[in-house]
Amino acid sequence: MVDQSTLNELVRIVGKENVLTSRVSLNTYMYDASLVYGQPEVVVYVQDAQQIAAILKLAGSKKIPVTPRGGGTCLSGGAVPQRGGIVIVMTRMNRILEIDPENRVAVVEPGVTNMELQKAVAPYGLVYMPDPASQKVSTMGGNLGENSGGMRGIKYGLTRDHIIGMELVLSSGEIVQIGGKLEPIAQELNLNALLIGSEGNLGIATKIICKLTPAPRANRTMLAIYKTLEDAGTSVSAIIAHGIIPCTLELMDNKIINAVEDWLHIGLPVDAGAILLIEVDGWDAGLDRQAQQIMQICRENGATDVKLAQNARERDNLWTARRMAIGAIGRLAPNYDMEDATVPRTKLPEILKEVNRLSQEYNVPIGMLAHAGDGNLHPLVLFDERNKEEMERVEKVRAALFRKALDLGGTLSGEHGIGLAKLEFVRWAFNPEELQFLRRERLAFDPSEILNAGKTVPDTDTAA
Amino acid sequence: MVDQSTLNELVRIVGKENVLTSRVSLNTYMYDASLVYGQPEVVVYVQDAQQIAAILKLAGSKKIPVTPRGGGTCLSGGAVPQRGGIVIVMTRMNRILEIDPENRVAVVEPGVTNMELQKAVAPYGLVYMPDPASQKVSTMGGNLGENSGGMRGIKYGLTRDHIIGMELVLSSGEIVQIGGKLEPIAQELNLNALLIGSEGNLGIATKIICKLTPAPRANRTMLAIYKTLEDAGTSVSAIIAHGIIPCTLELMDNKIINAVEDWLHIGLPVDAGAILLIEVDGWDAGLDRQAQQIMQICRENGATDVKLAQNARERDNLWTARRMAIGAIGRLAPNYDMEDATVPRTKLPEILKEVNRLSQEYNVPIGMLAHAGDGNLHPLVLFDERNKEEMERVEKVRAALFRKALDLGGTLSGEHGIGLAKLEFVRWAFNPEELQFLRRERLAFDPSEILNAGKTVPDTDTAA
Repeated sequence: MVDQSTLNELVRIVGKENVLTSRVSLNTYMYDASLVYGQPEVVVYVQDAQQIAAILKLAGSKKIPVTPRGGGTCLSGGAVPQRGGIVIVMTRMNRILEIDPENRVAVVEPGVTNMELQKAVAPYGLVYMPDPASQKVSTMGGNLGENSGGMRGIKYGLTRDHIIGMELVLSSGEIVQIGGKLEPIAQELNLNALLIGSEGNLGIATKIICKLTPAPRANRTMLAIYKTLEDAGTSVSAIIAHGIIPCTLELMDNKIINAVEDWLHIGLPVDAGAILLIEVDGWDAGLDRQAQQIMQICRENGATDVKLAQNARERDNLWTARRMAIGAIGRLAPNYDMEDATVPRTKLPEILKEVNRLSQEYNVPIGMLAHAGDGNLHPLVLFDERNKEEMERVEKVRAALFRKALDLGGTLSGEHGIGLAKLEFVRWAFNPEELQFLRRERLAFDPSEILNAGKTVPDTDTAA
Repeated sequence: MVDQSTLNELVRIVGKENVLTSRVSLNTYMYDASLVYGQPEVVVYVQDAQQIAAILKLAGSKKIPVTPRGGGTCLSGGAVPQRGGIVIVMTRMNRILEIDPENRVAVVEPGVTNMELQKAVAPYGLVYMPDPASQKVSTMGGNLGENSGGMRGIKYGLTRDHIIGMELVLSSGEIVQIGGKLEPIAQELNLNALLIGSEGNLGIATKIICKLTPAPRANRTMLAIYKTLEDAGTSVSAIIAHGIIPCTLELMDNKIINAVEDWLHIGLPVDAGAILLIEVDGWDAGLDRQAQQIMQICRENGATDVKLAQNARERDNLWTARRMAIGAIGRLAPNYDMEDATVPRTKLPEILKEVNRLSQEYNVPIGMLAHAGDGNLHPLVLFDERNKEEMERVEKVRAALFRKALDLGGTLSGEHGIGLAKLEFVRWAFNPEELQFLRRERLAFDPSEILNAGKTVPDTDTAA
């Protein structure tokens, strides 16, 4: 409970103007991009690590839940203060502290957006590789907490492959340095990697050290068109099996194609059952051959047509189509839920078939997007949140989808996290000993369990 | 203390023939490839996870230290039972359990050597990327514990980039699954990454899931010859700054060149101050241009000659020279100590100069090898262990070297671990709060601190 003395302390720490308690302010911080809600008792804007340390000491002494929040784009409830307490808004800690092109490293505050970092390093011919679709809005702190991915994950990995150190405020209020500017270099316990994707349960990062990569010299972008979703899925497996690693391998089904085309009119094949967007990058000389091989594999696996983008405009059109897909789908229904169940790449045809079946069985429309090269599905389940009966069917579809992904050897999350939205499914993925182990691990960092309380690892009766 | 009842229990768990207590057996397990020693009280051969679980329960109840041991090639004392207790020998758990070429994953037991894994996956056109120089002998369990690197680290990363899951026996005797066959995929707390490089302090891996990579299609190998070590160091920084990422970028100084040439007679330039061995790999088409650019950069930075290997025999000769360097140096002195202090790549010329200076100041011969592309030095300090006075100078050189590496923004270990050999230097790298934090983290896994006790994190008086 946040009582008056707590509020007074918060005002002392960050100043009156940075402590919000009005009804409208609290309502503003109830949600993120998921379907879960929860009202905070107070919202606090912070400027630096010392303020956060003071807040965590205060909260720890009174066992008040603390929810750090960046851009609020989390798809699994990571920024939702379901147990009330304090929301710490990180967006004013938004300075790029250092760009070191020689060592290919940038140091940023957590409120810097992914796109701001990209823009800052571009003049040096460098790239920060993870590029979540939310990159214009989502912050580096949030990217760290959720281990964000993006369209280049298949070749370049996720956030955990590109953040190599951080300054971290522990739940005790201690401030520690984890990792550093060197990479690839071992150093003590790899706490850095543990923290990436820990969904705010282990500490609050106040500086983030990012690895930068030389921008690829050239690329080739292809569009492969299919009659069926399964054929597209089979092509993905075949490309991977052939030992070619594209930087991007994205799948869109007929529903998504039409939603985008209706909106943008860029000439997508509206009769196709599915399309693949495929890009290879690297040194120019090898790319034509790789592109030819990929197009050949697509044709051999049922593509009715395969096109190579002939210029920058054609390429931009294809990526615009992909980036706008989620916005376009918003035109089809009042609400959508985008899931990131992930399966081994070889199981892609099977899970695509199952999603189709679920859509029909429960009479719930589902558009299919996927980071197909990673086996990372992004099915967009469409519905109207106000329709209770429909919501029950949607929940059944979600549960069946994740159940199937696990049965196929997959996981509950490719990049969006567990948060609140998938908390109960976690019990399917781990046995009781493993859940206790995860919980003990968390308690080692946060003994009072105030940090993003109640998320990621479900409660266990017998937890140590 | 291992008393008779403990011995009886061990015999019950693994059978009489797998419990060794003779003087000669205990002496055999006193050492690894570092300069530290310690005699175990008993040596146990294990066959499976259940036996290990039973041993850890027993050891935990009596607070007996347990040291897991693979090939015994650790360079920092990781396999040395300094506090006595039980050595668990893992080498009989040496089955390759699964090779899954479609998902590019292999599952192995920890006693499989790195080379055995390489040979098993080669027929599928796949490679397990980390290739420590010890690969013929060192086991995958040891590679995991120490986060082993190798000559391809600059492009392909270390062990932590290539092990994606494991079965782990906790200190409590519980057996848990961490990570899985999917990659790149987030899943819960990234305990997998935490465990890689944790030097046996957090648990004992009994199955290891390895990521495999398509073998590069082609390569180009170059030899650049320099008058001085500093010129070679400057070239390394320049190549990296140019945005080219070779798969290998190795440095050898005059002392190493001559030791190798005296032994192998393969035509190395014995008058050179230093050489760089450089390889690029990937799709054939782009490689000639990359090689030309690299050779140009080397010439611009002081190389007196640069040669491109013209055929497989010339390439093999160059790699033989590098792989045999450590063996060759063994001909120069009764003992050597190979360190892996690591600095930012831009600081390479500076640290190379300092090592030269230390060698002269303390009158200790040092041959310089380096995974130069990673900034990862492998100075070989030469001495005779029986000479007490010389040993004191060697210890001073070691301390000064690591102090300088840290001052330059470097780390204590690129890939060999902390173990016992660098334990006291750790206090220079972390402040007391950070040391306590590392210790708490360790205690979360191993509350009785029996696992590889006394290593990696120095004792702190105030540890929680």
